[in-house]
Amino acid sequence: MTNTFLHSGLFGNLFKDQAIATEFGADAFVARMCEFEMAWTRALESAGLIAPADAQAAVEAISGLSHRDFSAASDRDGLPVPSLVAVLRDGKTDQVAQAIHTGATSQDVIDTAMVLTCLDVLHNLDERLASLIARLEGLLEASGDVPLMARTRMQAAIPATVGLRVSSWIRPLAEHHARTQALKQDLAHVQVGGAIGKRDKPIGHSEIVAEHVAKALGLSLGPVWHTDRSSLVGFGHWLTLLAGSLGKIGHDIALMAQQGLDEINLDGGGSSSAMPHKQNPVLAEAIVALSRFVAHQQGLLGQAMIHEQERSGSAWALEWMTLPAMAEATGASLRHTDCLIASIKRIGKSGKA
Amino acid sequence: MTNTFLHSGLFGNLFKDQAIATEFGADAFVARMCEFEMAWTRALESAGLIAPADAQAAVEAISGLSHRDFSAASDRDGLPVPSLVAVLRDGKTDQVAQAIHTGATSQDVIDTAMVLTCLDVLHNLDERLASLIARLEGLLEASGDVPLMARTRMQAAIPATVGLRVSSWIRPLAEHHARTQALKQDLAHVQVGGAIGKRDKPIGHSEIVAEHVAKALGLSLGPVWHTDRSSLVGFGHWLTLLAGSLGKIGHDIALMAQQGLDEINLDGGGSSSAMPHKQNPVLAEAIVALSRFVAHQQGLLGQAMIHEQERSGSAWALEWMTLPAMAEATGASLRHTDCLIASIKRIGKSGKA
Amino acid sequence: MTNTFLHSGLFGNLFKDQAIATEFGADAFVARMCEFEMAWTRALESAGLIAPADAQAAVEAISGLSHRDFSAASDRDGLPVPSLVAVLRDGKTDQVAQAIHTGATSQDVIDTAMVLTCLDVLHNLDERLASLIARLEGLLEASGDVPLMARTRMQAAIPATVGLRVSSWIRPLAEHHARTQALKQDLAHVQVGGAIGKRDKPIGHSEIVAEHVAKALGLSLGPVWHTDRSSLVGFGHWLTLLAGSLGKIGHDIALMAQQGLDEINLDGGGSSSAMPHKQNPVLAEAIVALSRFVAHQQGLLGQAMIHEQERSGSAWALEWMTLPAMAEATGASLRHTDCLIASIKRIGKSGKA
Amino acid sequence: MTNTFLHSGLFGNLFKDQAIATEFGADAFVARMCEFEMAWTRALESAGLIAPADAQAAVEAISGLSHRDFSAASDRDGLPVPSLVAVLRDGKTDQVAQAIHTGATSQDVIDTAMVLTCLDVLHNLDERLASLIARLEGLLEASGDVPLMARTRMQAAIPATVGLRVSSWIRPLAEHHARTQALKQDLAHVQVGGAIGKRDKPIGHSEIVAEHVAKALGLSLGPVWHTDRSSLVGFGHWLTLLAGSLGKIGHDIALMAQQGLDEINLDGGGSSSAMPHKQNPVLAEAIVALSRFVAHQQGLLGQAMIHEQERSGSAWALEWMTLPAMAEATGASLRHTDCLIASIKRIGKSGKA
Repeated sequence: MTNTFLHSGLFGNLFKDQAIATEFGADAFVARMCEFEMAWTRALESAGLIAPADAQAAVEAISGLSHRDFSAASDRDGLPVPSLVAVLRDGKTDQVAQAIHTGATSQDVIDTAMVLTCLDVLHNLDERLASLIARLEGLLEASGDVPLMARTRMQAAIPATVGLRVSSWIRPLAEHHARTQALKQDLAHVQVGGAIGKRDKPIGHSEIVAEHVAKALGLSLGPVWHTDRSSLVGFGHWLTLLAGSLGKIGHDIALMAQQGLDEINLDGGGSSSAMPHKQNPVLAEAIVALSRFVAHQQGLLGQAMIHEQERSGSAWALEWMTLPAMAEATGASLRHTDCLIASIKRIGKSGKA
Repeated sequence: MTNTFLHSGLFGNLFKDQAIATEFGADAFVARMCEFEMAWTRALESAGLIAPADAQAAVEAISGLSHRDFSAASDRDGLPVPSLVAVLRDGKTDQVAQAIHTGATSQDVIDTAMVLTCLDVLHNLDERLASLIARLEGLLEASGDVPLMARTRMQAAIPATVGLRVSSWIRPLAEHHARTQALKQDLAHVQVGGAIGKRDKPIGHSEIVAEHVAKALGLSLGPVWHTDRSSLVGFGHWLTLLAGSLGKIGHDIALMAQQGLDEINLDGGGSSSAMPHKQNPVLAEAIVALSRFVAHQQGLLGQAMIHEQERSGSAWALEWMTLPAMAEATGASLRHTDCLIASIKRIGKSGKA
Repeated sequence: MTNTFLHSGLFGNLFKDQAIATEFGADAFVARMCEFEMAWTRALESAGLIAPADAQAAVEAISGLSHRDFSAASDRDGLPVPSLVAVLRDGKTDQVAQAIHTGATSQDVIDTAMVLTCLDVLHNLDERLASLIARLEGLLEASGDVPLMARTRMQAAIPATVGLRVSSWIRPLAEHHARTQALKQDLAHVQVGGAIGKRDKPIGHSEIVAEHVAKALGLSLGPVWHTDRSSLVGFGHWLTLLAGSLGKIGHDIALMAQQGLDEINLDGGGSSSAMPHKQNPVLAEAIVALSRFVAHQQGLLGQAMIHEQERSGSAWALEWMTLPAMAEATGASLRHTDCLIASIKRIGKSGKA
Repeated sequence: MTNTFLHSGLFGNLFKDQAIATEFGADAFVARMCEFEMAWTRALESAGLIAPADAQAAVEAISGLSHRDFSAASDRDGLPVPSLVAVLRDGKTDQVAQAIHTGATSQDVIDTAMVLTCLDVLHNLDERLASLIARLEGLLEASGDVPLMARTRMQAAIPATVGLRVSSWIRPLAEHHARTQALKQDLAHVQVGGAIGKRDKPIGHSEIVAEHVAKALGLSLGPVWHTDRSSLVGFGHWLTLLAGSLGKIGHDIALMAQQGLDEINLDGGGSSSAMPHKQNPVLAEAIVALSRFVAHQQGLLGQAMIHEQERSGSAWALEWMTLPAMAEATGASLRHTDCLIASIKRIGKSGKA
């Protein structure tokens, strides 16, 4: 759902991430829907179902799409695709019009564009994750031997080192990073099912067309997954794990920054309108909140599995309401964590006990 | 959290509500923060703590605020208030600067502005709710006697009428409408606590200043509620009830529209890119999804009650991540339900059993 | 849902509350269903629809019910009521059999028994809440003036007193306590709707019978609420607020107990299998977890509002899966908080900053 | 959390699963904790740290454990382990006492026992899943060619067959089944970290002891995962996917069973106390509710990732409150789905459109 309070700029980028937001924005998404449509047209052509000239004209129409405001259409249809197809076909000869989208369905376009988006988002997050891990390894090398009181159940336990704590931050992040290959494979499936998920169009050529589309988009061709949302829920799961591991770091740092523990010194920190002496660990707090947010949304995204009959507009919408926001929250959290670690001036020692 | 996928226009207004979004937008919110600051300055003046001329200069500075982009400041402070205050005081004499915000804290400003926002949002939703109820009563009058099969546990039960179903739609809505007065009273409390929620500033005048601020803003003065988030969670609860009752209507209509039951005919309906003969009950499906979304967020908003110590940046952020989105989803759902009811061409009969 | 891990005894009563569990247990619930059936029989009698002797025989059958295991029946019917009615009528004359349940439906019985259960649960929780408030007021009186560093955003803010913190614990609890009267009124409505929620049975006498049943059970008679679950969701909301305010206390105490802050000394505390020197604030941690649990379930309970058609077995079950567990968690949390406050040996001072 | 309403028998086994409940029960769990302790003792012995006779005496004490009620101990310690260890060591010579648990910690015992439990639960669920898939394949073979109207967005779309629908049920289940090997590998890691997760005890022998314990229990030895809860959250994710795919089947069947669609005939079905003619698709409705329940809990389980410092009693408890209930709900849902499919007397045709 939209939340103007957070995206209006009032809170800066504290709950936003420009890179991820751009991937889910209308421009990028329409471009990816067009990628699907182009691949579809070329597939029809390569199956010998449309003439090369018509295919060329169709591809030019798609790549030259200038109309990109599908608001009114979505208000009516619940989706931009019917209008997108109509705009693309508008003013074309019948042959060219038939070279566009014929045999595909809205869900093929949107799900495939969503997959392409998620793959780019995953790539972006994973790069930042790798760089965060490198930064944490630097911290480990620089301060790993500094004494730090280990704490269990909120109580001083046994004297240990910064290395124990920072290693416990790195380990799960490294595993989430290692998981991205398998995740990409799970995600990278084209959606080609047609009107009711039967994948029977164009009649007699459906498999070859589907294969061509998959290949053109750099995706795998598995079975239709119109009603099986496992891979997108699986992406949400990875976001939950990643945001959760960042949340642990944020929570730890907020606790370490407490006067009395004084186990960390940060450069910067938020100022207060009433207490000029304070330096608030604003990023650490935001990271924890973002982490709870992501985990919580997974509890709604999971309900998208209850996708009734051959297509559920209602269950489908649950994905759109959660996944983009989860990805953006995870992006913001990654950025904040990187920033927070970079701002460490001192870590360890103190921590009277 | 922000969700560019839904607010970029790709889905039109299906998951948006302009009226509610505007209330939570930066312009409206900054204006309300300024209302608080003006009331505060006037309260200091009326308590004899600042000179009338300084108060006047301060109020002019506040009402003339032109700088409204607090993004960078929020990135640093986690909040726009410290920067807002600095901007307001900038270039003023010490006396005028002291006439602004002195004795208040960021949370006083933000919580009070949030209360004012919620009250306007409630007013807006309640007006639309009243008009939806009126529309439903028209439907009841027009078609209440049309036969309709009552259905329990997804099974045909006993022949009844449209009136039985529509009455069950109206009744809870009317009760939610009736609850708004009590809800307003719960919500309409100014936040005046100062740095640590002690309400002891200005020393010796704190109660009179707090009373003046409350009165000037049309709010009640109860105890400080810095760490007690019950009233905002209570607003979320009302949104959950309202969105839930709309969700029932949406779900019922989606079921009635099934071929085989054919218990309703709607004007319009979404078109399909692959099946031109279809008219999809797009709004009904969106209403159900919006309803699940709102209910689900309440499960995170409720965790904002765990507001540690004298101020929790983390728990506070949970409110910002949920409440504005819940309100906007409820607004969208109200609009869709009104539209859906208005589009009914026939209701009842058929429903072979 | 059942969770054997927690109710098997392995974790003692850490996640259990005997008093609340008993109220929701089969014995108490069957007894309340029988209360409804007795009231119904007497109502039929007082409306002159059955003979006094038949009514008397029916009431004796109901009050003498010995068979109380409806497992197998529920496995078949999804509810114990059809079997309960069959058992009660078994071996009776037609007249006596007709004096039982005729004109009522399963949902009337279960919803009314649930209301009676919730009222008793509310009474129990409210009494304990009052006693916790009294204990906290004692703490306030005894230690309110002890210095304590106020902390905002996890940072030392301004020196204050224990009184500031403990007052912020008491205030919301006192308000939740004050809300119970209104909540009772919302909850205390009999359910009388008959097969499809029309409240038209017994024909010509339905209102008088419903009134009689309500009165006999000490409940109000409002409209049928078969598909409007607002009052039960409202009870869940109150539990969320209460558990949330307890969660804040638990979180505060866990933070105060940290070595380095040393703002509280507790008698007892959990022991460790590996670190004999430790005293873990086990109850404080459990309270926070219970609080998150209750808040989270409200996000599912709220979805019970999407109660399609004239009765939804699926939406109804969401209530059963959440509300009893939420009430028991709140009961456990109240008990733990009371215990935790009673165990305070010292509060305030220290808290180096 | 415990929910007496559902486990008291009132609802039979509708929301229960005996096989899964047994795995999470105190007896089975204590037995698995003892397995860990025995493996630990043998590991100490094989590292030459304790005498064979002492090891033997220790193992006999562990295997002969008769005291199994750790309720009171858990009430005090928040865990049964400190008391378990004390009971095992009670009355033993110092040498034998030292041969038990020395160098391990409560979390090692509980997490490892939880892993063993989850593996058994996974095995049980997977076997039932395989048998459900076989049953569905039988249905596909028997009725795959029967005509069935495909429905998208709750609207009749294009005539298709039962095969299209049933294939869409089988496909994700087969994939969840195929995922179990990878899941087992993720899960099957022993927990050996010691007091603060450093895995440094017994000094100089810690790795060899850990390896021995892992091998004895049939588990892998990876790094300490005291604060990284990814694998348990991953198990919850698999449960969400599985329960979600069952939820789709339940939802589809409830829709197919509607009079008007009449696309399925079921043997049995719940009876009604007021409408003897009805056959309610009770299991289908329960499956949908169980599915929402499981998905929803994942949103809380994910928050267990925010596991602060070296051990969080609060975050840990979130796992215990959710995972066992999710597994049991999934078990119940599997059983119901199997039963529901077995009860199909006719599927397809009808479905007037």
